[in-house]
Amino acid sequence: MSQATAIKAAPETAVSERDMANAIRALAMDSVQKANSGHPGMPMGMADVATVLFNRFITIDPSKPDWPDRDRFVLSAGHGSMLQYALHYLLGYPDMPISELQRFRQLGSRTAGHPEYGHALGIETTTGPLGQGISTAVGIALAERMLAARHEPELVDHYTYVIAGDGCLQEGISHEAIDLAGHLKLNRLIVLWDDNSISIDGPTPLSTSMDQPARFAAAGWHVQSVDGHDMEAVAEAIESARRSDRPSLIACKTVIGKGAPNLGGSEKTHGAPLGDAEIAATRENIGWVHAPFEVPDELLRAWREVAERGQLARLEWERRLTASPRRAEFESAISGALPDAVFEALSTFRKEHVEKATKVATRKASEMALGAINEATDMTVGGSADLTHSNLTITKGMNRIAPGDYAGRYIHYGIREHGMAAAMNGIALHGGFIPYGGTFLCFADYARGAMRLSALMGQRVIYVMTHDSIGLGEDGPTHQPIEHLAMLRATPNLNVFRPADIIETAECWELALKSENRPSVLVLSRQNLPMLRQAHTDEKVSARGAYLLREPAGHRAVTLIATGSEVEIAVSAAERLHAEHGIAAAVVSMPSWELFEEQDDEYRRAVLGSAPRVAVEAAARLGWDRWIGDNGVFVGMTGFGASAPAPDLYRHFAITPEAVAEAARKLVI
Amino acid sequence: MSQATAIKAAPETAVSERDMANAIRALAMDSVQKANSGHPGMPMGMADVATVLFNRFITIDPSKPDWPDRDRFVLSAGHGSMLQYALHYLLGYPDMPISELQRFRQLGSRTAGHPEYGHALGIETTTGPLGQGISTAVGIALAERMLAARHEPELVDHYTYVIAGDGCLQEGISHEAIDLAGHLKLNRLIVLWDDNSISIDGPTPLSTSMDQPARFAAAGWHVQSVDGHDMEAVAEAIESARRSDRPSLIACKTVIGKGAPNLGGSEKTHGAPLGDAEIAATRENIGWVHAPFEVPDELLRAWREVAERGQLARLEWERRLTASPRRAEFESAISGALPDAVFEALSTFRKEHVEKATKVATRKASEMALGAINEATDMTVGGSADLTHSNLTITKGMNRIAPGDYAGRYIHYGIREHGMAAAMNGIALHGGFIPYGGTFLCFADYARGAMRLSALMGQRVIYVMTHDSIGLGEDGPTHQPIEHLAMLRATPNLNVFRPADIIETAECWELALKSENRPSVLVLSRQNLPMLRQAHTDEKVSARGAYLLREPAGHRAVTLIATGSEVEIAVSAAERLHAEHGIAAAVVSMPSWELFEEQDDEYRRAVLGSAPRVAVEAAARLGWDRWIGDNGVFVGMTGFGASAPAPDLYRHFAITPEAVAEAARKLVI
Repeated sequence: MSQATAIKAAPETAVSERDMANAIRALAMDSVQKANSGHPGMPMGMADVATVLFNRFITIDPSKPDWPDRDRFVLSAGHGSMLQYALHYLLGYPDMPISELQRFRQLGSRTAGHPEYGHALGIETTTGPLGQGISTAVGIALAERMLAARHEPELVDHYTYVIAGDGCLQEGISHEAIDLAGHLKLNRLIVLWDDNSISIDGPTPLSTSMDQPARFAAAGWHVQSVDGHDMEAVAEAIESARRSDRPSLIACKTVIGKGAPNLGGSEKTHGAPLGDAEIAATRENIGWVHAPFEVPDELLRAWREVAERGQLARLEWERRLTASPRRAEFESAISGALPDAVFEALSTFRKEHVEKATKVATRKASEMALGAINEATDMTVGGSADLTHSNLTITKGMNRIAPGDYAGRYIHYGIREHGMAAAMNGIALHGGFIPYGGTFLCFADYARGAMRLSALMGQRVIYVMTHDSIGLGEDGPTHQPIEHLAMLRATPNLNVFRPADIIETAECWELALKSENRPSVLVLSRQNLPMLRQAHTDEKVSARGAYLLREPAGHRAVTLIATGSEVEIAVSAAERLHAEHGIAAAVVSMPSWELFEEQDDEYRRAVLGSAPRVAVEAAARLGWDRWIGDNGVFVGMTGFGASAPAPDLYRHFAITPEAVAEAARKLVI
Repeated sequence: MSQATAIKAAPETAVSERDMANAIRALAMDSVQKANSGHPGMPMGMADVATVLFNRFITIDPSKPDWPDRDRFVLSAGHGSMLQYALHYLLGYPDMPISELQRFRQLGSRTAGHPEYGHALGIETTTGPLGQGISTAVGIALAERMLAARHEPELVDHYTYVIAGDGCLQEGISHEAIDLAGHLKLNRLIVLWDDNSISIDGPTPLSTSMDQPARFAAAGWHVQSVDGHDMEAVAEAIESARRSDRPSLIACKTVIGKGAPNLGGSEKTHGAPLGDAEIAATRENIGWVHAPFEVPDELLRAWREVAERGQLARLEWERRLTASPRRAEFESAISGALPDAVFEALSTFRKEHVEKATKVATRKASEMALGAINEATDMTVGGSADLTHSNLTITKGMNRIAPGDYAGRYIHYGIREHGMAAAMNGIALHGGFIPYGGTFLCFADYARGAMRLSALMGQRVIYVMTHDSIGLGEDGPTHQPIEHLAMLRATPNLNVFRPADIIETAECWELALKSENRPSVLVLSRQNLPMLRQAHTDEKVSARGAYLLREPAGHRAVTLIATGSEVEIAVSAAERLHAEHGIAAAVVSMPSWELFEEQDDEYRRAVLGSAPRVAVEAAARLGWDRWIGDNGVFVGMTGFGASAPAPDLYRHFAITPEAVAEAARKLVI
């Protein structure tokens, strides 16, 4: 076990650890100054802590940054990105030469304003929106324990370290995250809190009196407080945290902008360059005689030795992997590739249910499809924000993850939608698993911050969002989504699937599983829906985003477009138009706007047709004009919902076959 | 002071308090059974606590439910709505006869699935999405202290009582709320936690190990734990909470579904009817011999006496109001009507800046307009989620609200966007103030849950959301909104204003202040923008949502539509089209889609014109097809942003006068 050999004392080098930290301070203040934008205070304040952490504890290998058993480092206080970039330069990440630091916050540089996953090597997750890093880290630390439970400890045995600021700990999401981590006893998670008592508006007592150590203790965490500039004390605390059987908080009392003689300790260092005069005074004060962006060789050597030790650990791990009887399984899980059996099972599933014409709610269809998926692979890890038996996210034989027991594959996330989404991001980022989790579509609101990061990071996270309209019924307007489909569809790099029946549901599940670089939202009904497909096809037509579900006998006079539970209404309206008025209406099912948008013009024109169009969706109109065109009609919601049984609501809001047929008839005559 | 006379012992009545509680139990289980939908477990579990609270402490008057100095009761665990409806029937609210309980959760009844503000008398706030009630109550309790600080204590002196469940306390928003309340020492806030150890998925230890009392203590709260079925103990705890100098948590250990002999204590009572057999067994068990929806007269009398005591207190208060020298000011504040001076000041402001052609960022324009507004009225209460000097929400002479000192009018909400939004809802609901608060537009994500409730409840809450596009620059994609305008525009009953210059900004502020039944979002730029209006008009043209800002000399060949910071780009493109190609381009500024949608067809057609259209907005396209039509072109964002100086980003994403002009030229030729 590489971790057991961790060294508490600083490795012997020709330079002092304080000088190593001062290199971070100088790089941070000079880069921010050159960019004339950024946050020098945090990197300068946390330079000592970060130096101890990286110099004595963290095992990473910049020459192979994605080595699976590396320690994970998450800069939750992402505005302090220069701390990470300075470290990456000092440690010798191949994509982080000094010229990148000189291009901090410039177009096309690797040194973005906040650390962006995929933008530079070694960045484990995108941070910046406060509280996301610490919450994502909970998922990373959980995935580590889960993967360790499945494989030998010699293959999976690493820590997740987080540097978090006051902002991270004030955000609500941090509550959800620390409660979950404390409950699950994620002892490989160590949070170093930059306790500098400064936020943007000024001293933190302007807005908070929270006793953070007591708060974390209440959540079951191991808690320590240290002087963040006393390097031995920091090392001792980290050592002790690593031995704890619980997640650890180390409150590091620091001075923001430490080293700056006049501005240190002030919010003025938080988000603005120090200015040339203060930078010169800081150089004097910390004894840093080197020019901007110059780090003397001996200091650089000391930092590169950290990387070399990491490389040795990585090579040792690779030898263990080669020798391991579990190598194939491990590598397969890490690759993220699903076995063909999953897709074969889904194909069989679709055939079977076309034949049976199974009529179930799409949430039930999702559960049934998941039954097939989860039997064919153990890479999927399910969960729900306390709506397991409403979202129908658990399938036969899934054991729950429990405190200290990580062998299961179902997570009771609690009433924590935002924490669930962030944890799923962490699980996906860690590797080895495909996370999916459920809540009501309306509560996508609560998870928005983390869902956006799923999309921005291109992670295969699957959101199972049920009770997707007024069809939810009696719970009323607070639980009935209206604007949520528009909100999700407007989000870049996010698949939004609203399947109409059990067949589309299975197809959409397959599309979500195959979207390796994009999160998906499955938008599912509470109420039963008939099977609408007329025959099995090997082609998964949902993959085209929209398709002609019903072609009329004669020349198309009108096209009815719908999604999800309203496709049934459109089909019924088409039948009525034909029977009562002799009007030939085509019905288009449109489970995914994003995928339809990606089709070529010819296909899209063929599906939409040149006849007038009516769209029906029990949601806000916003966005639908793209598909119905200048003369189209939209049948849907114009305000909030109401509390009543679902059929009453559909009638009350006039989202019915009669209303759709009438709208179509008026368009045609 | 009405509160000082509170009685701890139960008033003497012919019936026992336990019987009074059993009336709640019976009404709840019978109503849920009749509806075949709802949550009986919570009302049955908390019936004893609620009975003590209402019978001995709460001062309300069902005959005048909006009496300003009433105590506020917030059912944060809104799914237990039958608790509230049963109480309202028993207390004799005039709109809550027994027939309404018999129509629980039916279309058009007052007894919606969750308590809806405005839907039945005496409901202080809409609850249901967990955590909102307790967080809104923080705003209510704060408004009480602020109003008391402005007026005599004999006019404002009431408590805010909350019943919260496990779900409320697991949600992240609760952290933001209790941290803020503890910090501000809101001692009139008393939270009764239904500590029943059951959530929907099962026993709470499935997902949490939080020591809630310790957590609240860490936030500076006064904390007690009692047996929630020991009525004397509950009364003692409430008495003690009322004397505390801090907000109070009373953990009430209860049995969910208390009274049901077989299902009590189980999650099965949480969200489903008990069933006829268990209801019969419960009747037997609690000795309730009455038919469904029958409450014996003597019990009803005991409950109605509570209302009568409240009425006496209200009449006493009215006498104090009549005698008060501050009556006029107090009534004016409560009315919510702004003095004319505010709008006169804004008119002067607009004249002045048209003349000066002031070029400032719209966030700066907002600060300047706020300067005029805040000088003309003290009803506005500002704040920011720790971005005061970025959102520019504080104006000269605004003192901050501090722990124990509520005379100011600026709130440092901390890094708590969701908590801020909920608190603003509470301040608006309480009355006496118009709250506005700032954050970056991107972090509307964090506040979504509460913003939706602002809209659903129709509250005049004003969101000041700055840094509204890639124009934010170096902070990068995590801070650059893309889908947020679509998300907000799709939300019913929400004004979304994106003004283009200082004049539109002042107009939009006026529109927001005058929207008494609708929240507004002011979407503002970080970067400077020129004044575009060519002359002062008394008409506030922004009120029409969109208008012709520039009419071309000749026949309109193309229409360029833009909002906010992109209007400058459209104007410049129009000039270029004229100069380089002789193409006559009109420019439409469209600060509010909602208000434009409300105009008549004729006006809309006149503005949009029949020429081809190009829209430009540095955001997602979703929704724009409504305005550009079948052949229109959209110039905007197609994915996430990037980190770089703003001018570089506009060029990089080709949102420039050149690109707009080129798109228009291609449309026209």
